[in-house]
Amino acid sequence: MSFTLQDKINIALKLDELGVDYIEGGWPYSNPKDLEFFKLMKEYPLTRAKLAAFGSTRRRGLRPHQDESLNSIVKADVPAAVIFGKSWTLHVDKVLEATREENLAMIAESVEYLRQHGMEVIYDAEHFFQGYQEDPEYALATIEAAWRAGARVVVLADTNGGTPPNEVYRIVQEVRRRFPNMPLGAHMHNDIGCAVANTLMAVAAGARHVQGTINGVGERTGNADLVAVLPTLELKMGFRVLRDEPPPAKYSKLREVSRLVYEALGMAPNPYQPYVGEFAFAHKGGVHADAVMKVPRAYEHVDPALVGNRRVFVVSEMAGGASVVLKAAEELGLELEKRDEAVRRALEEIKRMEKEGYSFDLAPASALLILMRHLGLYTERFQLLEWKVVTGPSEHSYAFVKVRVGESVRLEAGEGVGPVHAVDVALRRALTASFPELVDVALSDYKVVLPTAKKSTESVVRVLAEFRDGQRMWRTVGVSTNIVKASIKALTDGYDFALQIKNGWGKKPIYLGKKDVLIK
Amino acid sequence: MSFTLQDKINIALKLDELGVDYIEGGWPYSNPKDLEFFKLMKEYPLTRAKLAAFGSTRRRGLRPHQDESLNSIVKADVPAAVIFGKSWTLHVDKVLEATREENLAMIAESVEYLRQHGMEVIYDAEHFFQGYQEDPEYALATIEAAWRAGARVVVLADTNGGTPPNEVYRIVQEVRRRFPNMPLGAHMHNDIGCAVANTLMAVAAGARHVQGTINGVGERTGNADLVAVLPTLELKMGFRVLRDEPPPAKYSKLREVSRLVYEALGMAPNPYQPYVGEFAFAHKGGVHADAVMKVPRAYEHVDPALVGNRRVFVVSEMAGGASVVLKAAEELGLELEKRDEAVRRALEEIKRMEKEGYSFDLAPASALLILMRHLGLYTERFQLLEWKVVTGPSEHSYAFVKVRVGESVRLEAGEGVGPVHAVDVALRRALTASFPELVDVALSDYKVVLPTAKKSTESVVRVLAEFRDGQRMWRTVGVSTNIVKASIKALTDGYDFALQIKNGWGKKPIYLGKKDVLIK
Repeated sequence: MSFTLQDKINIALKLDELGVDYIEGGWPYSNPKDLEFFKLMKEYPLTRAKLAAFGSTRRRGLRPHQDESLNSIVKADVPAAVIFGKSWTLHVDKVLEATREENLAMIAESVEYLRQHGMEVIYDAEHFFQGYQEDPEYALATIEAAWRAGARVVVLADTNGGTPPNEVYRIVQEVRRRFPNMPLGAHMHNDIGCAVANTLMAVAAGARHVQGTINGVGERTGNADLVAVLPTLELKMGFRVLRDEPPPAKYSKLREVSRLVYEALGMAPNPYQPYVGEFAFAHKGGVHADAVMKVPRAYEHVDPALVGNRRVFVVSEMAGGASVVLKAAEELGLELEKRDEAVRRALEEIKRMEKEGYSFDLAPASALLILMRHLGLYTERFQLLEWKVVTGPSEHSYAFVKVRVGESVRLEAGEGVGPVHAVDVALRRALTASFPELVDVALSDYKVVLPTAKKSTESVVRVLAEFRDGQRMWRTVGVSTNIVKASIKALTDGYDFALQIKNGWGKKPIYLGKKDVLIK
Repeated sequence: MSFTLQDKINIALKLDELGVDYIEGGWPYSNPKDLEFFKLMKEYPLTRAKLAAFGSTRRRGLRPHQDESLNSIVKADVPAAVIFGKSWTLHVDKVLEATREENLAMIAESVEYLRQHGMEVIYDAEHFFQGYQEDPEYALATIEAAWRAGARVVVLADTNGGTPPNEVYRIVQEVRRRFPNMPLGAHMHNDIGCAVANTLMAVAAGARHVQGTINGVGERTGNADLVAVLPTLELKMGFRVLRDEPPPAKYSKLREVSRLVYEALGMAPNPYQPYVGEFAFAHKGGVHADAVMKVPRAYEHVDPALVGNRRVFVVSEMAGGASVVLKAAEELGLELEKRDEAVRRALEEIKRMEKEGYSFDLAPASALLILMRHLGLYTERFQLLEWKVVTGPSEHSYAFVKVRVGESVRLEAGEGVGPVHAVDVALRRALTASFPELVDVALSDYKVVLPTAKKSTESVVRVLAEFRDGQRMWRTVGVSTNIVKASIKALTDGYDFALQIKNGWGKKPIYLGKKDVLIK
C-alpha cells in the first residue's frame, strides 16, 4: 500500500478528528520520504493524536548512537516512537544470528536511547505468540527488558497472524499474571481471519492499547481493521476508546474515514465490510423488510446511524418486490400499493434484466427509471437515435451522437481520451444545448465489472456510473458485450434521471444514496 | 447470492470431495426451485456428505402436518433437516407474536415431526446470544425443547453477528455447564468482523459442529468463512475436521473450492483472503525475501502448499528488485546477478510504468517481457503497426489491424460483439497466419479495473488478461485512458509472450502462475 504525501496528511488529520491517541506515520529508515511527511505535519498541529515514527531495535554489534535506523526515528522529531524487536528464539538464532543476551541488550539499549531523546516509546514484541509458545521464559525476558528500559507500553504482536483467538486469550492472560503492572497492547494480523477478534480477545485478557489500520489494509491478508475494532470495544464491550467527544456521536465519522483511505489507495470500498460497508445493514425486501421497520433492534446489532451508515433494502430474486416499492415510496415520497399491477410489471422487467447481467443494488436510479415508466410517471425528454465511435492508437478517439429532443434532431461530435470519453463529450454537448441545467450534473464515479464467471473479450460488461449535481447523488447501470454501449446506457440513464427529477417526481426532495438520509 | 442449478450441483460435488459432513442445499419453502436441486442431486450420489434442507419451525396456530414450510422440507427427501426457531423473547413477543409456551411447542413439535419422517434434525437457535443475554432461562428452555424432541445437534446462532468473541466463549461455556451432554454447534455472522473467530471460540468452549459458507459469502457482511475456519481448526487447534483423507493433504483442495464458488457467483476472488488469497503468502522483495527462502517457518504461519496456495514475491515501491529477479531466475531457470545493470534498468522501467497506473503483481508476464528485453533475451516476432475500431449501437463492432512479421506486412479485419472482441479477432487472424501455434493459445480471463481514486470517463483503465495454452497459464497487463488501447496492449503482450517462450527462454519449463509449482 502506498499513499501520496498529501493523502497521508489528509488521513492523519481525519484520524486526529476521529480521536485516536497515536498515529504511526512512517518508517523513516526504510522509506526516507517519510521524514518529509513528519516535517510537513509540523504545519498541521494535531489536537489530540501524537505522531509516532516506526523502526527496529539497533543492529547487532553497534552502539545505539551509531545506528542509522534509531537515529532516523530521532530525526523524525515527533513525540513517540514505535520500535519492534525479537521475542522468538528462532528469529534471534536464525535471522538476527545474535546471541540471546545480545538481543536483550539490543532491546533495552534501543528503548533507553529513544527515551534519552525525550521520546515516548511503544515497544512491539514481534512474533511474540510464536516465541511464547516455543520458549515462554525467553519471550517474557524480552518484554521485561523493554519495560524496565522505560517503554510506555509493551505490544504483543502476532506478526505472522497465525494464532487462534483462544490461544491469544490464554497467552495474554499468562503475561498479565506474570507482569501485573506492565501496560500491554495488541498488534494482530489477519492470516487466519482473526485479526479483529484477536485484538478484542487481547483486550478481554487485559491489554489496554490496540494497534491496527483503517479498513485493515496491510501486507498479505491485512492488519486488524480499526473500523471494526473501535466501535466493538466501545459499543459492545463497554470501553471508552476514542477521546473527547462522548459516545456514540464520535463513531458517526467512521464511514467517512474508511472511504477516505479507500480513495487514497484507489481501492473500491468493500461492500461487505462490518459497520461501514454498503451491505452491512442490507435487508432483503418482502416480509422481513416490514419486520425490520417495526422492530429494528430485533434485526440490527447496532443502529446504522451510530457508525455513519444506513439501512438499505436490496432488490433480489428472493425479495417480494417490497424493496423497490419501499425505495420509491420512501425516497421519492410516492405512495404505492405493493400489489399494484404496474409495480409487478416493473419488477418483472427488472428480473429479466438481472438475467442479462444487470444488478440494481448499487444503481437504484436505473431501477427507478423502469418503475416510473411503468407507473406512467416518466416523460421522455430526449432520445438517443444513433452513435458511432472511431478509435485507434492515437491520443484521441472520436464520436458522433444523434439526439432527438421534441421535434428537433441534433448531430454532435466529440473528441476524448478514449471511446467512452469521446461519446460522453458528444452526448453532453447535444443535451446541454436543449437542457442547460445539465451543466451542473457531473459524473463522479465510473466503474467497469465483468459479472460473468467465464471472462473473455466476448464477456458481458457491467458499467456503473455515479452522478452528482451539488445537492444529490445517483447511480445508474448499463450492460452489454460492447463496453462503449454499456457505458452509454449508464450515461444516458444518468442524464435522463437528472431531467426526470427536475420534472418534479414525487412530493419530497430526493436524496438517493445521500448518507444523512436514512430509509426508515 | 444466487447460483444456477448446475453451479449448485458442481459446488455440492466439490464440497463432498473436500470431505464435509453436511451440505445445506436450499430453503425449499422460500425458494421452490431448491426442490429441483434436491431432486437432481439424486443423480449424483455423494460419497461422504449428507444433504440437508433448510426451513423454520411450524407457524403459530398450525399443527406440524398442516405447515407448508415443514412439509416442503419433508418433500426435499434428503437425510437431514436444518430448522431455525426463536430463542430471543423479543422475537417471540414482537415478531412471532406468540406466547412463550407456544414457541416452545412450535420448536418441539417441528423437530418431532421431521424426526417421525426419518430425518436427522439440526436445530438452529436463532439470535441465541442476544436471547441469552436478555433472558438466559428462556433461551436455555428453547434449546432444551429442541434437544429433548430429538435434535441431533443444537446450533447456537449469532444471527445478527454482533456478539464479541469473549462473550461467545462465556455463553457457550455456560450452556455447556448447564447441558453437559447436549451436542452443540456454532453458526456465526460477520457483522463485527468476528465470524471466523467466534466459530473458533465456540469450539474452544465445547461446540463440535460448525456451520459456515465457502468464502464467507452470505447476507450483509457474510457468514463464517469455512476456508479460514476448517484449516485453523485442524492445523492450529488440533481437531480432526474433514473426513477420510489424512491431514494435511485434504486441505490442498481448499483454494480450488474457494475459486469455484467465486466463479459461480461471478465475483472476483479476494486477493487478501486468509489461506487462499493471491496475497496470503505474499512477501515484499529484497532482504526479507532472502530471509523467507532461508527459514520459511520464521515468516509463514503455515506451508502455503498445505492449503493449495503458493508463496509469491511482489514487486513494489519498497522492494529491492530481488523480487523480479527471483521470479525470473526461479520460473525461467535463469541465473541473474541481482545487481546487474540490465536488471536495474528493467526495474526502473517497471517503476516508471507503475506511476502511469501499471501493476505487475498480477501480471508477471508483462514484467518478464520488459526484463527479457533489457537482458537481450527478447526476439521481436511481430509488430502491431496500426489498428482502428468502429463501434456503434448495432450488434457488431469492426476493427482492422496492420501487423508486420519479418519483411511482410499484413492487414486483417475483425468483427466482434464489442470493440475489444473485434480487435482480438483481427489480431488473432493476422498472427496465426504467420504463427499457427497461436491457435492453441486461449484468452481465459479478462478484467478491467480503474486504478485511480478519481473516476470518470477520462480515467486511466487497467486491463488484466490471462492466457492458457493447455500446459501453461500467464497474465499480462495494459494501461491507457482508452480501454480499447489498454486491452490491445494486454492482448499483444499475451501473444508475444507465447511466441517468446516457444522461442526457448531459459532452461526449464515455465509454469507461470500454475498453482502446483511453487516459487521456492
